[in-house]
Amino acid sequence: MIKEGDTVQLTDGKNRFFLKVKKGEIFGTHKGNISHDDIISAGFGGYVETHKGHRFAVVKPTLHDLILYGIKRKTQIIYPKDSGYITVKLGLTDGMKVLESGVGSGGLTIVMANAVKPTGKVYSFEREEKYIKNAYQNITLAGLEKYVEIQNKDLGDIDYKEFFDAGFIDVREPWHHIHTIKKALKKGAMVGFLLPTTNQVSLTLEKLKEHNFIDLQVVEILERHYKPVPDRLRPEDRMVAHTGYLVFGRKSWEDG
Amino acid sequence: MIKEGDTVQLTDGKNRFFLKVKKGEIFGTHKGNISHDDIISAGFGGYVETHKGHRFAVVKPTLHDLILYGIKRKTQIIYPKDSGYITVKLGLTDGMKVLESGVGSGGLTIVMANAVKPTGKVYSFEREEKYIKNAYQNITLAGLEKYVEIQNKDLGDIDYKEFFDAGFIDVREPWHHIHTIKKALKKGAMVGFLLPTTNQVSLTLEKLKEHNFIDLQVVEILERHYKPVPDRLRPEDRMVAHTGYLVFGRKSWEDG
Amino acid sequence: MIKEGDTVQLTDGKNRFFLKVKKGEIFGTHKGNISHDDIISAGFGGYVETHKGHRFAVVKPTLHDLILYGIKRKTQIIYPKDSGYITVKLGLTDGMKVLESGVGSGGLTIVMANAVKPTGKVYSFEREEKYIKNAYQNITLAGLEKYVEIQNKDLGDIDYKEFFDAGFIDVREPWHHIHTIKKALKKGAMVGFLLPTTNQVSLTLEKLKEHNFIDLQVVEILERHYKPVPDRLRPEDRMVAHTGYLVFGRKSWEDG
Amino acid sequence: MIKEGDTVQLTDGKNRFFLKVKKGEIFGTHKGNISHDDIISAGFGGYVETHKGHRFAVVKPTLHDLILYGIKRKTQIIYPKDSGYITVKLGLTDGMKVLESGVGSGGLTIVMANAVKPTGKVYSFEREEKYIKNAYQNITLAGLEKYVEIQNKDLGDIDYKEFFDAGFIDVREPWHHIHTIKKALKKGAMVGFLLPTTNQVSLTLEKLKEHNFIDLQVVEILERHYKPVPDRLRPEDRMVAHTGYLVFGRKSWEDG
Repeated sequence: MIKEGDTVQLTDGKNRFFLKVKKGEIFGTHKGNISHDDIISAGFGGYVETHKGHRFAVVKPTLHDLILYGIKRKTQIIYPKDSGYITVKLGLTDGMKVLESGVGSGGLTIVMANAVKPTGKVYSFEREEKYIKNAYQNITLAGLEKYVEIQNKDLGDIDYKEFFDAGFIDVREPWHHIHTIKKALKKGAMVGFLLPTTNQVSLTLEKLKEHNFIDLQVVEILERHYKPVPDRLRPEDRMVAHTGYLVFGRKSWEDG
Repeated sequence: MIKEGDTVQLTDGKNRFFLKVKKGEIFGTHKGNISHDDIISAGFGGYVETHKGHRFAVVKPTLHDLILYGIKRKTQIIYPKDSGYITVKLGLTDGMKVLESGVGSGGLTIVMANAVKPTGKVYSFEREEKYIKNAYQNITLAGLEKYVEIQNKDLGDIDYKEFFDAGFIDVREPWHHIHTIKKALKKGAMVGFLLPTTNQVSLTLEKLKEHNFIDLQVVEILERHYKPVPDRLRPEDRMVAHTGYLVFGRKSWEDG
Repeated sequence: MIKEGDTVQLTDGKNRFFLKVKKGEIFGTHKGNISHDDIISAGFGGYVETHKGHRFAVVKPTLHDLILYGIKRKTQIIYPKDSGYITVKLGLTDGMKVLESGVGSGGLTIVMANAVKPTGKVYSFEREEKYIKNAYQNITLAGLEKYVEIQNKDLGDIDYKEFFDAGFIDVREPWHHIHTIKKALKKGAMVGFLLPTTNQVSLTLEKLKEHNFIDLQVVEILERHYKPVPDRLRPEDRMVAHTGYLVFGRKSWEDG
Repeated sequence: MIKEGDTVQLTDGKNRFFLKVKKGEIFGTHKGNISHDDIISAGFGGYVETHKGHRFAVVKPTLHDLILYGIKRKTQIIYPKDSGYITVKLGLTDGMKVLESGVGSGGLTIVMANAVKPTGKVYSFEREEKYIKNAYQNITLAGLEKYVEIQNKDLGDIDYKEFFDAGFIDVREPWHHIHTIKKALKKGAMVGFLLPTTNQVSLTLEKLKEHNFIDLQVVEILERHYKPVPDRLRPEDRMVAHTGYLVFGRKSWEDG
């Protein structure tokens, strides 16, 4: 049931480890070492023990597990509350070609690649070379590297024509690149932006209007957690209050 | 580019119509009639005119378009803010078999089927026969009927054993069925619930604990829209304040 | 217990009426007429009947009752969620002199006048004459007219020097008047602003910084209601998502 | 302008100190010592220097300053977002007698005493003796001790009849005391509750209904702060997600 190269999650309720299994190898934790072969024989839903006798369950990681606990973060990531919404809003589906810039730590890339596989692909443009290796490792951990192509390039330097079915842009000053993005999208394709400040939202909206994007939408997604205690049900004391504003538009084929 | 059987969206910025195109047919709107053949020759990104001269753009509908504007609602639907999050949280991906109950109007079914296609399937159990036909039409409009199987059956009457990779339950009293759900899920699989009241959340959490579900999480997703006006940016005056609480758990293989 | 001139609230659970009682007068409702004398003899906590036999309870109105149900609105009002916070943030207390502009429908004026009575006063400047009469009637209904002085004057035309203990400004372009406001406030006094758009917030903050205001704060207050049903407790379906951003600062005595 | 016994706030933008001034005394800070006499001669809006040359502004503290930075917390406090709303909702005004239980650290007591002064009073019942001294010191710091009477008594042991104009209850299991509270309130008086969990809200609502309380309301107040930066305006990353649910009702004079 677990094949060489599969990504597994080991969890004891508190700790979570993610690894791609490879016969003959050993995985080290602060609770002791675990043999990959043991993981393979346990299978998903089984248990393994470290050499110190500490027990871990072997679980198939979900996208949520991978993004919140599995990937290494070298940048702010886009959280499931946002990436789930983005996927539905952009209408991502098997077969689509998606423009992304930048790749960051690959958190959104993973969710989008998962949505367009097996016949689609995410084309991600990242101008900071230092992020690319880490993002690639994260995407590989998620087993999605076949569906992602990362190029070390500024968004402003790409030159595609009506190639992409959708796009998502998470760069600091996207308003400089609306022309490039519009050219790269197919007619009627959706594009989204993540923008931390209201000033960025205003500047981006202005340019999207200038370029005749339609169906403009600005939205925030908030996620509020509760303590899962049946007889003392209550929200957590604190929450993430802001990740960014999401701005969406659809390419119109009118001039602009 | 548009093939017979494809679903298209006609929009003039205000009105949105969704239809599956079929050569030789005529689509009637309050702005006049449109020939399907004209839609096919226009293609996605093109325009058609009604016999009264009103112009519509021809757009490929996204999941978001279909769910918010395309499907017929005979029940409360699960909105993109929730269905996007559910997809990531359950880790839905190509190839998965998903348990759903009930189907309602098919809003979540569409998002989940889209996530598991082309090789996975959503198995939806709905005890109210009256909803099934409408849900099926909605799912067909989304072009996803190959990836969904709806059975007219109460959740309590299903009998699967370690068959499903994930599940989502939207019935009034799910706490009566946790045993059935647990049996039907694979080890380590995630299940989610939508529950409108805090009392339902407490009762469901209690039973999930009794049955040793792990990684319990209760969360609300809130969606706040802004008027997309660059120089007068502000939230909309009113918003949807509540659709339901989302409860998630993971099947443990310990007894319980 | 009820004296001539007191404001009373008549309620049957659905309808709420507010009136100042005056011996010998008759109050007409769509459920029939009520004699003021009957209200006086019933007293707070008593009942009156209309000539058609419909029964109303006689209740002392709270600030919340008056603002939400009692006052006539000719403008957007400032809601209790905001006016309560403003009162605490500005530190309003018996004896203070408060600058307000404009008066609008008097919703905030009532809450502030209540906070500074019996020895303080709200000085309200309103450039639109048409709002003043209505505001005055509302403030009189609340029985607070002794603690409010309304002048038909633009904020920009006032000329006070270190006179006010606190201020609250609800005009469209307050950034033009920061100098005037600063001059009018005592050293160390707090001032607040209600601003619907993010652009207004940015422009106001910029000027407050230029004029050396300290302790700057931007905050939104959100109010989420629940259906008060013990065994089906849940948030209301919809809520007010935005009234305005609140901006606060404290006058510094450094030049600027 | 500053009299002996006044409470002043010393602030350098980062640190805030609160003290009641007394001629001849010295106030010690980690930035050096300050003579009370210097504070008195500086006056509100002036400056003082420590013996090490560090400069502090002398500011009159607002309620908000006192509650957030001035009082010593031995319990969870009720924040301005809630206490401001409570004041307006209960309709507190000069002259009212208010029931409070328990006193906690006095955060709400201060706001309510400020609202009913100079001729009203808050009667606070606290069964934990250990909190009373601290609460009294906090109330004294706010200069409101004349308007508060604290008794070391369980809410269940009080015996008042139609004495209070309003009440606010912050105890763990208020549903046991609704009869006592109802008896103590005047007809038509409002009472509020702060309750952290949904289970407590359900139990309290049930009893309020049994005792014929009317105008029931359950509400949450959320406070979201923004970074006050004009050209990069954005919400703070994190926020307080929950303090408690506020439940309100009005005493009806029907039996129950």
